[in-house]
Amino acid sequence: MPLTKAEITRLRDLREKKHREVSGLFVVEGPKVVGELLAAGADLAELYATEAWRGGAKTGPLPRIVTEAEMARISHYPTPSEVLAVGRLRRAALESGELARGLTLALDGIQDPGNVGTLLRLADWFGFARVLLSPDSADLFSQKVINASMGSFARVRAITTELAPALREAAAGGAPVLGCDLAGDSVHALAPAADAVVVIGSEGRGPSPAVRATVTRWITIPRVGGAESLNAAVAAGIVCAALRRA
Amino acid sequence: MPLTKAEITRLRDLREKKHREVSGLFVVEGPKVVGELLAAGADLAELYATEAWRGGAKTGPLPRIVTEAEMARISHYPTPSEVLAVGRLRRAALESGELARGLTLALDGIQDPGNVGTLLRLADWFGFARVLLSPDSADLFSQKVINASMGSFARVRAITTELAPALREAAAGGAPVLGCDLAGDSVHALAPAADAVVVIGSEGRGPSPAVRATVTRWITIPRVGGAESLNAAVAAGIVCAALRRA
Repeated sequence: MPLTKAEITRLRDLREKKHREVSGLFVVEGPKVVGELLAAGADLAELYATEAWRGGAKTGPLPRIVTEAEMARISHYPTPSEVLAVGRLRRAALESGELARGLTLALDGIQDPGNVGTLLRLADWFGFARVLLSPDSADLFSQKVINASMGSFARVRAITTELAPALREAAAGGAPVLGCDLAGDSVHALAPAADAVVVIGSEGRGPSPAVRATVTRWITIPRVGGAESLNAAVAAGIVCAALRRA
Repeated sequence: MPLTKAEITRLRDLREKKHREVSGLFVVEGPKVVGELLAAGADLAELYATEAWRGGAKTGPLPRIVTEAEMARISHYPTPSEVLAVGRLRRAALESGELARGLTLALDGIQDPGNVGTLLRLADWFGFARVLLSPDSADLFSQKVINASMGSFARVRAITTELAPALREAAAGGAPVLGCDLAGDSVHALAPAADAVVVIGSEGRGPSPAVRATVTRWITIPRVGGAESLNAAVAAGIVCAALRRA
């Protein structure tokens, strides 16, 4: 049965955050990312595939077979893939007191979705308990974020929330709030920690004033050469690795 | 005087590597990157700007003023900027024996231009003596690489070359060739070094067999969580930071 015009419009609309929020759904495309989400047990609601992909799904919903022309119409990309999945958008919420326990990566105004995905992936690698995203960071449920996370999207607990009150709560509970800046204690002097928050701001502006006010210790990555800054994910990786030094 | 059709074609053609190689020229666009290159003293041959940008250049060649319609035709982007610069493509060559001295970042098959730019930037931050790029890595003179390097393109000595013979020469001269992999000595046990090569392979495949054969010591970044790998630039940043530990 061909897709109706209403179905096509609904799927195409999910490229916009407002439609994702209203419908509670998001879209990912391509055998790699769909496979990663299926493998990680993500909550997929619908699956659309061309004959080329048929049989590729071992778990999850049965694919609805569509023609290549239909796939081209529902795809969010100029070059459609053979599979498109619709996932249920679940926005996690913070539990009372949880921020003082475990390692948290807090992203303040990181707007590049590739960077956000890379940061989710490194939080996953280093076994962080959660990632917090300020409301002006890239949307967690955009395809670019999910793709760049290489499956970590489905494994990392990620919460979009106002950072300043959350970081104050973490600090009040005893977790140091570590900010990265051009000045501060050397990351090489940072002792491993079981409970801490690592705050990463945008490369151009750094953390916002409200977030800066919550930082309890500034950390710097000593510079030898001429670059003005490091990529946000590179800086986060160096600080997170230091916290996990065995 | 309006741009001729031949001038427009010549500038547009520079989006392709083969035309850059033949003409010995490359293009960058946008006030930020053009400003970075001018500030870093890059060898710019030509400058095209709309009235909106006039007076923005304090150094370098005088801008040739073009209309917005002309800029739209010469731009490599769907959304043209107010300034487009043409730089002279200079491919650096290795000097005899230089690889055994100082720190080298060697990129093997890193095809994502954003990643290559980010890696140039971190090599700049950590004061590496040079970056080597395998011939199948992203072209150093593509706009995406230059943009992502945030000006480090003009400061870092970067050489595209066959890696295996170069790394063998480094090792023969006494510089350890460090490879990053899922198994190896912990990066936290890596002593700071003045002379070393850090080899970064593509995220999917790692270094090529010929390059792997030149590695004298394997280094790993201990994993705590579930991600299958780290972003290449994040992994490089962690190893480079360890080598620069004061």
